[in-house]
Amino acid sequence: MGRTSDAREKIISAAQSLIELRGYSALGVAEICKTAGVPKGSFYYFFESKEALALTVIDEHWAGQRRDWTRILRSDTEPLQRLRQLFEETEARQRAGQKSCGTVSGCLFGNLTLELSNQTEAIRERLQEIFNAQVDMVESVVTEALQRGDVTVTDTHEAARSVVAQLEGQVLLAKLYNNTSQLSVLWANCLALLGARAPQAAANM
Amino acid sequence: MGRTSDAREKIISAAQSLIELRGYSALGVAEICKTAGVPKGSFYYFFESKEALALTVIDEHWAGQRRDWTRILRSDTEPLQRLRQLFEETEARQRAGQKSCGTVSGCLFGNLTLELSNQTEAIRERLQEIFNAQVDMVESVVTEALQRGDVTVTDTHEAARSVVAQLEGQVLLAKLYNNTSQLSVLWANCLALLGARAPQAAANM
Repeated sequence: MGRTSDAREKIISAAQSLIELRGYSALGVAEICKTAGVPKGSFYYFFESKEALALTVIDEHWAGQRRDWTRILRSDTEPLQRLRQLFEETEARQRAGQKSCGTVSGCLFGNLTLELSNQTEAIRERLQEIFNAQVDMVESVVTEALQRGDVTVTDTHEAARSVVAQLEGQVLLAKLYNNTSQLSVLWANCLALLGARAPQAAANM
Repeated sequence: MGRTSDAREKIISAAQSLIELRGYSALGVAEICKTAGVPKGSFYYFFESKEALALTVIDEHWAGQRRDWTRILRSDTEPLQRLRQLFEETEARQRAGQKSCGTVSGCLFGNLTLELSNQTEAIRERLQEIFNAQVDMVESVVTEALQRGDVTVTDTHEAARSVVAQLEGQVLLAKLYNNTSQLSVLWANCLALLGARAPQAAANM
């Protein structure tokens, strides 16, 4: 009863929805189990603690997002167009989230960074690994673009981090104003941050 | 006992420190009063609720930050240099915070945006007003810079919002990595986002 892998999935899924809506600290194990429809006893069968559950939610969310980022950023399209697609899919995903639950829920990793990174080292480390991986993936594309002469950056790592920072900052404002239309500037801002040659032409490709 | 304006200030000050360290949801009124050294009874003499206290903390923090931003952004220095000073003071403030409490605490408004904007409308509205004001202040400077021919933006409001978004995104990463040195790219990124003419020359002004 409940102690099946199905119960584990239900707990993870309920926790992810609740964390996206209300953050981590405001949640209790009892509420997570009630939302998941599993008896509270089964929680500790699957997870040592609420923190262990949060780490699992982070890992599962990143597994899905990493698949998306890999598909987009390692495709055979021109490098800058891959970044453009990343921003367009990010905007579309935030818009779909807003449609389904009424509010822009933002980036799970950004939300947990600002809520938790100074509170639990295990979560801080996991989030650092994820942002490192995101920056590395963007940097590979920026390096390709640089080799083609499409951009003019001097430090590809710093440039990639700035692109990710701009993404997080704009998603933060989209969440605050519950408005995804602000995310449409990401592409032009990315071209500016990378010192893209002939950004107007690139934008109209 | 405790029902003096001194007790009110102690509660606000304790709440601000605790919110910066651990966010809002994780806090209880009892803990705030204990940290403030005031009896719990006095809390409800001054504040209707924890949310009312959070709004007061936000207002007091913004009053101080608005004074700083006004001093910097309305000075008679050249417009782009004012933005540079804003970033330098932001970096210095985050570094001082890290020195005093061991960790980069980030931007109180950004933290509360990601933690709370989907939970309490009163806090969302107050934070929207603050970010509106920040964007307006930056936009005034961008408009001046545009009139002087220092930048080439087509939409000053959107450009100002992107500068604020980049600031929030970089502060988020500084908090995650507990490292303020990443904030040093803000000035160069701002010049890029604004399409500043001869950014190298400007950077060396």
